[in-house]
Order: sequence, then structure tokens, then C-alpha cells
Amino acid sequence: MSRIEARIEDLGLALPAPMLPPGNFKLVNVYGGLAYISGHPAIDGSTVLVQGVVGRDLTVEEGYEAARLAALSIIASLKHELGDLDRVTSWLRAVGYVQSAPEFHDNAKVVNGFSDLIIEIWGEAGRHARSAPGQGPSPLDVPVIIDAIVAISE
Amino acid sequence: MSRIEARIEDLGLALPAPMLPPGNFKLVNVYGGLAYISGHPAIDGSTVLVQGVVGRDLTVEEGYEAARLAALSIIASLKHELGDLDRVTSWLRAVGYVQSAPEFHDNAKVVNGFSDLIIEIWGEAGRHARSAPGQGPSPLDVPVIIDAIVAISE
Amino acid sequence: MSRIEARIEDLGLALPAPMLPPGNFKLVNVYGGLAYISGHPAIDGSTVLVQGVVGRDLTVEEGYEAARLAALSIIASLKHELGDLDRVTSWLRAVGYVQSAPEFHDNAKVVNGFSDLIIEIWGEAGRHARSAPGQGPSPLDVPVIIDAIVAISE
Repeated sequence: MSRIEARIEDLGLALPAPMLPPGNFKLVNVYGGLAYISGHPAIDGSTVLVQGVVGRDLTVEEGYEAARLAALSIIASLKHELGDLDRVTSWLRAVGYVQSAPEFHDNAKVVNGFSDLIIEIWGEAGRHARSAPGQGPSPLDVPVIIDAIVAISE
Repeated sequence: MSRIEARIEDLGLALPAPMLPPGNFKLVNVYGGLAYISGHPAIDGSTVLVQGVVGRDLTVEEGYEAARLAALSIIASLKHELGDLDRVTSWLRAVGYVQSAPEFHDNAKVVNGFSDLIIEIWGEAGRHARSAPGQGPSPLDVPVIIDAIVAISE
Repeated sequence: MSRIEARIEDLGLALPAPMLPPGNFKLVNVYGGLAYISGHPAIDGSTVLVQGVVGRDLTVEEGYEAARLAALSIIASLKHELGDLDRVTSWLRAVGYVQSAPEFHDNAKVVNGFSDLIIEIWGEAGRHARSAPGQGPSPLDVPVIIDAIVAISE
């Protein structure tokens, strides 16, 4: 078993099914030693796992958990595309787009659910640059979608 | 005529004038074998082609068409910058930012207008990673703006 | 003194303290000759310098100034990470996410505050590809956050 998958198992985590993309696009696009990852919500195949507006329908803790589940969805797509998660050698940058109520401005506390999990699994190689803008009405009414760029080995 | 331009002609499509950037920035920035493309709406020179909020002023089909026209605007900028569209060898990633009504969550169906056209023209080399977040009030009140990164040859 | 720092001094500008990131992420992530820069508002350490909604609490000129200050915050993070700002050889792309009132659509005029300053300092090497989407409720209630990718030398 690969080192990263052993780490995921040690943490007691299970990966969902890879997202079924709702259109003509790739979940992960590999080019020039990088993998460009599409925006992912917390999703299991085509089943959305968390919906709602942070600060209205969802607490900040529930938003954090949705971002953590989105990280697992991204990892599932990476495994599906790359075969071996050990090929992901470094997390470069991510954007977490947060759907929130007008007076909610704790975007960072939501997207930390993604960043914390990636670093739990990959260690320092998981530490990335990040933006956490608010978004308008989100795809599928999810509280957060996250895209990323990672470095990969052959 | 280049292969891609012949394909555009075969599809009965015409490119608009390249966007006049409303500020000190580049439509397309070439570096290290990649071209970084600025956010484009459906625009012809400085004439915005579609305005409004999807799900309020515009139907999802009109949003799809706006994303398709934004793809043509991007292609016009690439032609202007690169000279020959055959130099675009692969579409790596795109973000389509959708301006929509609060209860509209079919972002993917809007941005598909972009992705479908790029794949119609470039085939599998056009298939990219993608995010389709909602945006707040958009530049120029357009329903969608799209930015992208593509791989290019010398 | 490095050429870029001399230029910053000539322009009478002073850099704020580098942003304290509100989570497990890097302000600047260097990989493969590029630096991926996290989303920055106008901030001095952990003190937010400008808050509010453009077109409601802030004029477009105040939004422009906030984007200009965000550029200085980014430069402070680059200096902290890279040591010498002359290592930034080219600005490739930036996204400025604008928090605005529903009827405000002059996003470009806000994000120009960033682009104009980068070009004042770096000259043509500062001219980048750019997107200026509207964002939903922003982190820390700031009017604009900006992320970027730059090319660097060893």
C-alpha cells in the first residue's frame, strides 16, 4: 500500500466515489508535472453530501466539515486519475469559494477544513498557498467548492 | 489556414474583435510554455454582448450561450496574441464565474457553454479541469466571465 | 539595495508587516520557478486596513486604494519569503475578488489599484493577465482580496 493511502487509513478516513462531472470537463488534468484539479464540493459520486449557506443554514463548524469532505472528494479524484496518491509530491495552491450569509466573514475558518486535512495527510508537502473568497449562489447549493494545483511525479 | 481556424470556419463560427482591456493588464500572458488568459465575458472589442443575472434576467440557455460567446472572445484574444491558434496544444484549466439569482444553482449548465465549444473545436486536447463558482455582482453586469490556462507550442 | 526595493523607496511607498495567515497555509509557495501567492487583502500583520462593501460603504476610489494596499501586502509577503524582491522577474496572472453592492459593476476600476501599482514598480514585467470577479461576502469583510502567480529566479 502506498504511504499516503496508509496514512489515510491510519487516520480512519474513507474516500468517497470520484465525482461524476456535470459537463464536458476533467476532474484532474495532468500536464507538465502538475495536476490541475477541478472545483469539488463534498460529494460522493453524484450525491452531494452537504448543502446550504454558511452562517444561515450551516454553522462555521459544519462549513469546516464540508471543506474537509471536499478534500476527501479531491483525493478520491486524484486516486482515480493518478492511480497512486504517492505521486502527489506537493500541494501548490488552492481556492476555496465559500457560500455564506451576508454578514458571515469567517471564510478562513471554513476553508481550514480543507487545508488542515491535506496537511494531516501529506505533512509539510501539503502546505499550500490559498484564497478563500466568498462566492455568489453556488453550484448545487453547496457551502464550499475547492480547486487546486498539485505537483506530481511520474 | 491553420487546422484550428479551419475547424472554426467549418463550424460556421466567427470570432469577435479582441477585448479592449479596461485597465493595465494583458489579455493573454505567455510564459514558460503556458498562456495565462484574463477573465473574458462575451464581448466584441468593447461592446458587451450579454448582460444580466442568470435565473432572473436570463434563462439557463441564455447563460450557456453567453459562456459560448465568452469562449469565442477568449479565442479571439489568443489569435491576436499568438498569431496561430494551432499553437494552443492543450487546455489545462478554466474558471467560469457565474452571476446568478439567489436560488439558481445550475452553474455547471452555464459554464458548459464554454467547455462544450472548446471541445468542439480542439477535440480531446480541449478537455480541461474546471470550476464554476457563483460570483457576486459581476464586472459590466455580465452573466459569466471565464479565465483559463492553456499549453502552447513555440 | 535591490533594484525593486530602490524603486519602492523612490515611489515613497512603505511595506506593511507580512500577513499573519489565519490558518494552515503559506503566504507564498515556491515551486518550479513560480511563486503561488495566497489571497491578500489590504492588511498589516493581522490588522485589516480597509473594510466594507464597494458601492455602499466605500467609493470606487476607496476600493482602488484598497487594491493598491493589497498589492503592498503581497509585496511584503514576497519579500518575507524570497528575501530579495528582484527575484520576482515577471507577474503572470492575478485574480482580484471584489465585494460590492448589487448594482456595482466597476470591478475593473477597483482591481486597477493593484495592477497599476505592480506596473509602476516592475514596469512591463509587471503586466499580467487578470480576472476581477465579484465575490460574495468576503473574508474579514474586506472590499477586495487578490491572489497571483509570479515567475522567480533562483
